[in-house]
Amino acid sequence: MTILLAMTPESQAPLWRARLQSALPGRRIVTPNEIGERTQTRYAVSWRHPEGALAGLPNLRAIFSLGAGVDHLFSDPLLPDAPIVRVVDDDLTNRMSEWVVLHALLHLRRQRLYDEAQAERRWREEDLEQPAAKDVRIGLMGLGALGQDAARKLRAMGFPVAGWSRAEKRVEGVGCFHGREGLDAMAARTDILVALLPLTPETRGILDARLFAKLARDGRLGGPILINAGRGGLQVEADIVAALESGALQAASLDVFETEPLPSNSPLWRHPRVYVSPHCAAVSEPEAVTRNIAAQIAAYERGEGLRHVIDRALGY
Amino acid sequence: MTILLAMTPESQAPLWRARLQSALPGRRIVTPNEIGERTQTRYAVSWRHPEGALAGLPNLRAIFSLGAGVDHLFSDPLLPDAPIVRVVDDDLTNRMSEWVVLHALLHLRRQRLYDEAQAERRWREEDLEQPAAKDVRIGLMGLGALGQDAARKLRAMGFPVAGWSRAEKRVEGVGCFHGREGLDAMAARTDILVALLPLTPETRGILDARLFAKLARDGRLGGPILINAGRGGLQVEADIVAALESGALQAASLDVFETEPLPSNSPLWRHPRVYVSPHCAAVSEPEAVTRNIAAQIAAYERGEGLRHVIDRALGY
Repeated sequence: MTILLAMTPESQAPLWRARLQSALPGRRIVTPNEIGERTQTRYAVSWRHPEGALAGLPNLRAIFSLGAGVDHLFSDPLLPDAPIVRVVDDDLTNRMSEWVVLHALLHLRRQRLYDEAQAERRWREEDLEQPAAKDVRIGLMGLGALGQDAARKLRAMGFPVAGWSRAEKRVEGVGCFHGREGLDAMAARTDILVALLPLTPETRGILDARLFAKLARDGRLGGPILINAGRGGLQVEADIVAALESGALQAASLDVFETEPLPSNSPLWRHPRVYVSPHCAAVSEPEAVTRNIAAQIAAYERGEGLRHVIDRALGY
Repeated sequence: MTILLAMTPESQAPLWRARLQSALPGRRIVTPNEIGERTQTRYAVSWRHPEGALAGLPNLRAIFSLGAGVDHLFSDPLLPDAPIVRVVDDDLTNRMSEWVVLHALLHLRRQRLYDEAQAERRWREEDLEQPAAKDVRIGLMGLGALGQDAARKLRAMGFPVAGWSRAEKRVEGVGCFHGREGLDAMAARTDILVALLPLTPETRGILDARLFAKLARDGRLGGPILINAGRGGLQVEADIVAALESGALQAASLDVFETEPLPSNSPLWRHPRVYVSPHCAAVSEPEAVTRNIAAQIAAYERGEGLRHVIDRALGY
């Protein structure tokens, strides 16, 4: 019985193999080159695996994604029909919320202006307009494990939080919206829009000019702010740049991009009110990921069901 | 019956008078120049009032400070013996916690390094060492209204929090230390030291080389970090500069300074791992302050006691 590790970049594979081996002592971990007898492979672990690398494995029981997102799997037309398990890991969830709260506070407290003043050794005597968290409305797109944790922590900091999801949900203390009309209704009361959605055909490009135009114009921050820590494919970068230009957006924090690394000629790099970060919002501890996979395999082999299996029709 | 408004800079007085007037309709608000019959003055409102401005008021019932700190009052040797009331205002408390959590997260998530990379349009491929909040121990000096609120919000973000106060206190979920030996014990398990203490003869200069040397050296952030949002007089800036040089401190966020504005020749301005801000962590909404004072006066005149009266012997 073997576990197939299929990932890019290949240079990362030895490290991940060592981690998996340490979480799964006694199991044989193989890469696509070493696979040998294909009937032996029972589990596959993937991160952006090469097309077809998981095909032709008759006894495959589950595919584990090394990240919270699973959209990377669907670019493979030869993806087998086994259950796809995504990482739902408290560590990754907490890291994402740290990043989201950090960026909500950076904008709330005008940190870029204080950074500029510091660089010039300038003591700003005049008080900057800095509304309190209670006066700034967050609209959260995505109410899964990540969205719910971020909502709880943003509320703890004093922000009023509304949330939007595809299907109806209830989250304590969060005004919940759903469906297409629900999105417009939430946008109308949103000063900071936070995207924590999975990338699916339905959500691709959802952060676009049409949505930005629906955001609240009567807020305390001088215009709406976009925070995207989900997936680059959610956003239309040309629309973000144009919205920053026109004032439809006042500022943004972007951790993900249509093309990564973000090309050096992107105007986003140098916009004074845009934070660009290199897809680092929630890099989980690799040990937490492999522990998670090992625990799921052990539970499955005890006859328990797999948890966090995605719905292929929905894509998440 | 009059209310005396005595403050510097004098240029701010008209604005504060208008605010007080609006919160206290029907009351006569006077400045020291306009005071007239001194037996008429029942309340004084002070912010760094000129020496002697509150003296010789036989019917003075209370002195209200326009800020959370009251140390500015004690520089006046002619300060009368009336009860001193400080502002304890939820808005101010919340603003302070926003700033403290923001700065704890800025250091945790290495934002300065990402800012630098962005300025150079450089996508950092390598992951920076970024421990999770749960792996970084906060030590909070001061467990009053501000400290307790900051503790609660830092804990919500996942940080383990210990706290220190002059006298013994209990705060849920916070390991509490007190007294001089307690401070050393807390320092030994502290990666990020947060000062939210009042300035008293006992706390002046408490953030010094001796204390920095007691901080934990086995943390995940590469060395201890100091966050001071309390009072500039708590810190010995020469010791901070030397500690940053020697590595006894790894980084700092300072909102308050021995001399404000911070002189332009201070090396703190340009240190790559120091955040300098112009005493802006918790500027309360003036309306909240005046509402607070008006509510206290109304309660007092109904025969209720004054709340948040300081203990002169302790200085806070």
